[in-house]
Amino acid sequence: MTDPTRAARPMPSRRSAYPALRPITTRWMDNDVYGHLNNVVHYSLFDTAVNGHLIEQGGLDIHHGSVIGLVVETRCHYFDSLSFPQTVWAGLKLLHRGRSSVQIEVALFGGEAERAAALGRFVHVYVDRETRRPVAELPMALAEALDQLKAAA
Amino acid sequence: MTDPTRAARPMPSRRSAYPALRPITTRWMDNDVYGHLNNVVHYSLFDTAVNGHLIEQGGLDIHHGSVIGLVVETRCHYFDSLSFPQTVWAGLKLLHRGRSSVQIEVALFGGEAERAAALGRFVHVYVDRETRRPVAELPMALAEALDQLKAAA
Amino acid sequence: MTDPTRAARPMPSRRSAYPALRPITTRWMDNDVYGHLNNVVHYSLFDTAVNGHLIEQGGLDIHHGSVIGLVVETRCHYFDSLSFPQTVWAGLKLLHRGRSSVQIEVALFGGEAERAAALGRFVHVYVDRETRRPVAELPMALAEALDQLKAAA
Amino acid sequence: MTDPTRAARPMPSRRSAYPALRPITTRWMDNDVYGHLNNVVHYSLFDTAVNGHLIEQGGLDIHHGSVIGLVVETRCHYFDSLSFPQTVWAGLKLLHRGRSSVQIEVALFGGEAERAAALGRFVHVYVDRETRRPVAELPMALAEALDQLKAAA
Repeated sequence: MTDPTRAARPMPSRRSAYPALRPITTRWMDNDVYGHLNNVVHYSLFDTAVNGHLIEQGGLDIHHGSVIGLVVETRCHYFDSLSFPQTVWAGLKLLHRGRSSVQIEVALFGGEAERAAALGRFVHVYVDRETRRPVAELPMALAEALDQLKAAA
Repeated sequence: MTDPTRAARPMPSRRSAYPALRPITTRWMDNDVYGHLNNVVHYSLFDTAVNGHLIEQGGLDIHHGSVIGLVVETRCHYFDSLSFPQTVWAGLKLLHRGRSSVQIEVALFGGEAERAAALGRFVHVYVDRETRRPVAELPMALAEALDQLKAAA
Repeated sequence: MTDPTRAARPMPSRRSAYPALRPITTRWMDNDVYGHLNNVVHYSLFDTAVNGHLIEQGGLDIHHGSVIGLVVETRCHYFDSLSFPQTVWAGLKLLHRGRSSVQIEVALFGGEAERAAALGRFVHVYVDRETRRPVAELPMALAEALDQLKAAA
Repeated sequence: MTDPTRAARPMPSRRSAYPALRPITTRWMDNDVYGHLNNVVHYSLFDTAVNGHLIEQGGLDIHHGSVIGLVVETRCHYFDSLSFPQTVWAGLKLLHRGRSSVQIEVALFGGEAERAAALGRFVHVYVDRETRRPVAELPMALAEALDQLKAAA
């Protein structure tokens, strides 16, 4: 009986693969009973890196913007442990930008490490704040902030 | 340009698909700025449901057991919102049990809902606590606790 | 040099001291590296118990209510450990209800324990959602939900 | 009926009052439904600042040290909101160092603000890792790391 999980396992990526890298400090309570970042924390770092980039670049106004991003899918492969008190660097790369949906890859690097400790991906669908229906087109400021995350060809 | 995320999107499952269902209370701080459970929280509920089942069934001793489960991959599809103060029910189903690795599906149901609000999957590899190398065989108590999560054929 | 922390240390209270007791499930990631609930988690349980009571009793509408509760002070004394996968019971008691401020005591009991593992207190000031200034008087539904937490004389 | 909470309310302190200041990045999920850091998060930042200082200064070995710090009391006064994506600076000051117990004040400053948004205090008792009984004397490296947090007279 083959293990269906093995086929798709990606390789750890490297820092140079990411157009943007953002530092995030870890917290004491991120460490679980085994002394390493609990697997849940990684998703909190993904969220933080992506939204932090979009807010700083003017692409997302969480309080007053007309569109909001709903998360429809997330995933993560874990390669190495991360631990408090390390600083983690989150690398961001745009994988796909459609009319209303966006796919972003996020890699986490512990301290100075060149090799990713974890590799995540998530899919946002942008909806109208009131109707909660997918927008016909992304606002321009958001599209531009996302396009900064395109990897050089 | 096709959207690569669409092909694989699963359908929301139903409660009856799961051999075990476990209640988890939500928390005030689970709600994010949009008033719904932040996407990160779902993973905390997955972790809690699986480890809760294994500990109760005697399959996991987090303090003294000779093996520990490392998470190597997790993912989640989000269909509907969940919100505090709802109680969430987590349905558990064993997808695969290999020599040292295990794949479990977890679905989250808000309150009395029949249709899953989120559908997650994660992969554990069990390793020796000291060497951190994959075990040759799962401890019997763990294998039994996992086998309780097999869906009826 | 005397230790200024000792004087005020209260005794652990008992379940019967609380007009309301609410169950909260613990989570895998609540346990810290020492295998017990991290001290931060207790505050999340306080928040959850109080807001859960107020929402259920119709005293708090977090999305549309005209007033919102700002936390101005919290504190906790820790007596015993709590650990996942225990269910924790939160006991609630109104200590003071002023014109715009409220003081509530919250005790946490692990599983069936009669003696509190932790004893918290916090102070809310209710403000107008728009102006963020303290209200002249609590809305009646809120006052009633709070008064249910008065200990019998 | 006087409000018993008012008497003891301290004034917000300033950055210059703290011998050590440590930056902590906020996270998307720290923001609650009102758009500001949930009151629980502050305690996570206190914990992180203190333990981060002690680990960096060699005063705390969370995996192998012979003593561990148990939290016996924490408290916080909240003056102003903090919000993601702000960076928060945590100021640390030793209030008291006894034979086995330690009291530390932690202030949180949002971004460049001079005035504290929150003022916390907590009390650690150091115990033997095995017996969990208070130590007769703090290890020297720990005492030294703590003494770095004494405010200039």
